[in-house]
Amino acid sequence: MRICLLGAGNVAVHLGKQLQAAGYTLVQVYSRTESSARSLAQALGCAWTNSLQSLGMADYYLCALKDDALPGALKQIPSFPGIWLHTSGSLGLEVFEPYTRKCGVLYPLQTFSRQRELNLNKVPFFIESLSPELLVEIHSMAEKLSERVYELDTARRSYLHLAAVFACNFSNHLYTLAAEILQEQGLSFELLLPLIDETAGKVHEQSPKEAQTGPALRMDRNITDKHLAMLQSEPERAELYSLLSESIFKSNKQV
Amino acid sequence: MRICLLGAGNVAVHLGKQLQAAGYTLVQVYSRTESSARSLAQALGCAWTNSLQSLGMADYYLCALKDDALPGALKQIPSFPGIWLHTSGSLGLEVFEPYTRKCGVLYPLQTFSRQRELNLNKVPFFIESLSPELLVEIHSMAEKLSERVYELDTARRSYLHLAAVFACNFSNHLYTLAAEILQEQGLSFELLLPLIDETAGKVHEQSPKEAQTGPALRMDRNITDKHLAMLQSEPERAELYSLLSESIFKSNKQV
Repeated sequence: MRICLLGAGNVAVHLGKQLQAAGYTLVQVYSRTESSARSLAQALGCAWTNSLQSLGMADYYLCALKDDALPGALKQIPSFPGIWLHTSGSLGLEVFEPYTRKCGVLYPLQTFSRQRELNLNKVPFFIESLSPELLVEIHSMAEKLSERVYELDTARRSYLHLAAVFACNFSNHLYTLAAEILQEQGLSFELLLPLIDETAGKVHEQSPKEAQTGPALRMDRNITDKHLAMLQSEPERAELYSLLSESIFKSNKQV
Repeated sequence: MRICLLGAGNVAVHLGKQLQAAGYTLVQVYSRTESSARSLAQALGCAWTNSLQSLGMADYYLCALKDDALPGALKQIPSFPGIWLHTSGSLGLEVFEPYTRKCGVLYPLQTFSRQRELNLNKVPFFIESLSPELLVEIHSMAEKLSERVYELDTARRSYLHLAAVFACNFSNHLYTLAAEILQEQGLSFELLLPLIDETAGKVHEQSPKEAQTGPALRMDRNITDKHLAMLQSEPERAELYSLLSESIFKSNKQV
């Protein structure tokens, strides 16, 4: 099975390499950015292009473009042979609709960084297609990457993506704010790593609501007021502190 | 060295057991709640009391009470022999000041849950005392629990605690919100665990700012507007979504 990969970002890099390792033939990489296309194509030992008019023949066209780039890119592609898949949590199948009926979704629920090695085997993959035959093909592709493959429709995949934004993107940003607070005091972010690991580790054993700790849980005003005073020169952090503390307190009261 | 433990909450349970394992003799547990005092005392094989007037003799009085309970508890204690330590991130030494000069801080930077086993060995402990001799004693106690012991003054310990609230308490609450979103769709929170683990794992190798991913980073309005529409019936989640997304976007522009 020959795959043409559209995109050369973090998702494309990881999926491309692991699909190749799983026995698929990567034939071409497209990226608008020539250097990215070239670099990934080199790693995969295949052709590259930065022109959508120059896509070659393949069995699969795997679109790992940014969500806001995919609809525009599809409009520029002259014809639609093969099977078209995208890897987005938030886009539906209808993005392919004007062009092809042989389409589906292969969404890995994970945060990808270029430099970091990542074993996809435990990563949940969510697949979708209107064609039962194609769903079987996509299932077989996903199974070669991961032991956790689930069928999920677009609507619920969107909520899954929204939940992932809270659990991953927003949590990581709170790490950033914590790192800034420490840096301002000449303290190393590394000090927080055992705490961050344990916070993530705890929710393997108990629900996050049960795992909640800290001053906001019982609204210990001595501490929360003191923290807000310490954040006085950073109104954005202070607003987040207030809002998250109130949300924790309310959530706890609902037990 | 004989220790009297004030408090029978999560911190007291973990410190009590590991101090005992490190060779200290736990002589008494105090908790306002009789059943908690009794249960921890049983686990430690020592005496218990729910009356501050009945504290026995010890070399150390280790206060692992809630921050808002400690000052009131200290007022009720008839005399202050021995060395007094507290385990709080946010309280200073002055909480002991009217009563004793032999006092210090032993603050473990970690989130403690009762049921979960926890190896304290990699947990950073932050110690403080105005007495150089006592600092040496506290250092020696902390070293028996962890290989990571640091001296830190009250002011910077407060900022460390504030950073921990962002990185741990607030992140965990975002897990809770994500769990609620999934539950409403009939999806299991367990699906997010590889993502949560990887989010925590990434910041061991790169700064959280470098590790940031997601739609807010480039303010992909197609997705963020869609997510806000999905959160319409939950104004609190929507407000957090907006505020965190804007904060990520601003943070990314500052690179």
